[in-house]
Amino acid sequence: MRQLQRIAIAPFQKQQEQIVLTAKQKHYLYRVLRLGEGSKFIAMDGEGQWWLTQLRGEEARVLEKLEVENQELSISVTLISALPKNGFDEIVRCCTELGVSCIAPVISKRTLLKPSPQKFQRWQKIAQEASEQSERTFVPNILEPVNFDQSLSLFPDSENSAAQHKKYICTARSDSPHLLAYISGQKYAIEQEKPCQIWLATGPEGGWTEKEIELATEAGFQTVSLGKRILRSVTAPIFALSVVAAALESIAIENVDVKF
Amino acid sequence: MRQLQRIAIAPFQKQQEQIVLTAKQKHYLYRVLRLGEGSKFIAMDGEGQWWLTQLRGEEARVLEKLEVENQELSISVTLISALPKNGFDEIVRCCTELGVSCIAPVISKRTLLKPSPQKFQRWQKIAQEASEQSERTFVPNILEPVNFDQSLSLFPDSENSAAQHKKYICTARSDSPHLLAYISGQKYAIEQEKPCQIWLATGPEGGWTEKEIELATEAGFQTVSLGKRILRSVTAPIFALSVVAAALESIAIENVDVKF
Repeated sequence: MRQLQRIAIAPFQKQQEQIVLTAKQKHYLYRVLRLGEGSKFIAMDGEGQWWLTQLRGEEARVLEKLEVENQELSISVTLISALPKNGFDEIVRCCTELGVSCIAPVISKRTLLKPSPQKFQRWQKIAQEASEQSERTFVPNILEPVNFDQSLSLFPDSENSAAQHKKYICTARSDSPHLLAYISGQKYAIEQEKPCQIWLATGPEGGWTEKEIELATEAGFQTVSLGKRILRSVTAPIFALSVVAAALESIAIENVDVKF
Repeated sequence: MRQLQRIAIAPFQKQQEQIVLTAKQKHYLYRVLRLGEGSKFIAMDGEGQWWLTQLRGEEARVLEKLEVENQELSISVTLISALPKNGFDEIVRCCTELGVSCIAPVISKRTLLKPSPQKFQRWQKIAQEASEQSERTFVPNILEPVNFDQSLSLFPDSENSAAQHKKYICTARSDSPHLLAYISGQKYAIEQEKPCQIWLATGPEGGWTEKEIELATEAGFQTVSLGKRILRSVTAPIFALSVVAAALESIAIENVDVKF
């Protein structure tokens, strides 16, 4: 099945046994991928459902629903990333490959860039492409940029909620424990199968202001370190996502017989 | 001390109590940083030594040797990275920030790019800049590109050597254990303070060939997984370095009191 081309569709594009294609998708399938009438491809709805489909003129016909391997992280990870001057494309691309569920770009005190609506559409396109490339079942959700203080209340914690939210704000030059120390400690929660979400907040060039760290701490964020070196604002979220993905995915094999 | 500008020098530029500046360094100090005669800055020789120095015309005078915090990883990590079609600059920049000691670019069976000598100089410059930016004491060594099979014997293992070499080749779509499982298992070696080096090999677009994995295995490499998703050849080395750096740097604090 892996040899077939995969394209991402919006859930509403699937109508009974047909997939209604957009002009761009038709261009991509016929012109870019050079598929012909009757060619098969995989349509992914970004919510975990894949269908084997066949090109029929303006539409695609659903042949069968596919059982897909789940390539997703066992826990939903949201990245709150202060917009860097350059390189947010790279953050979206790499973090999508690494399994992020949702990216919330934020404007912090030291953010220089105010993004245009075109940028926002571009990020969504990159997330879609990176999902296809990395063979993910889901396309991460990219939120519209908001101010940092607003982002802290985007997903409110509820006392009555069964879900556990683990929130980390990454800081440089602090004495805080390393992010990996926290995520490794969290394994017990996963084993107990409590629903759980992880939030990671990474700062802009020059870092978070003291006030911002204070606000985040009040909102339940734990300050964490990403190591001894000073990472660029583009590298920090990629590093943080790498650490979380590795910690979540090495659980199953941690008792493996390690040969030395 | 952190407010002072830092520049990287070659060890031979320090002659007794003077630092002989190159034309480019003079331009950078006087024109780009706009320092004046008598201004102080930090000179780093890329081998762990830092000096507080003062601009004096064509030279800089050494005022004192600085005791620097060691921002380096506790173990030397060498990255053997197949050259991607695009994006090796990004690999050099990010992996330098993440603490790599040495980068060996290699030409594998599926490598499309044969790099020019200009590229090689450019990578060295990026490594130097990224070391300064991330406040590292060392500038990683970038080797000249060689064929993958040659790279396997670059640092031969010796039966009599006191050093332990841990060698990992990262593979996609394999049943191998996760890189983090191995690195975490390695902690005991670090605690015992045996000298140890880690090698990581990451493949090109399309991955390593079966023959290449066979050759590496014969040369003592362990195949490892980087998780369930397919990472681009630019993302794979950044992910692998992130995992190793996090595992090495979270050791000291892993018994921290984790609040939930």
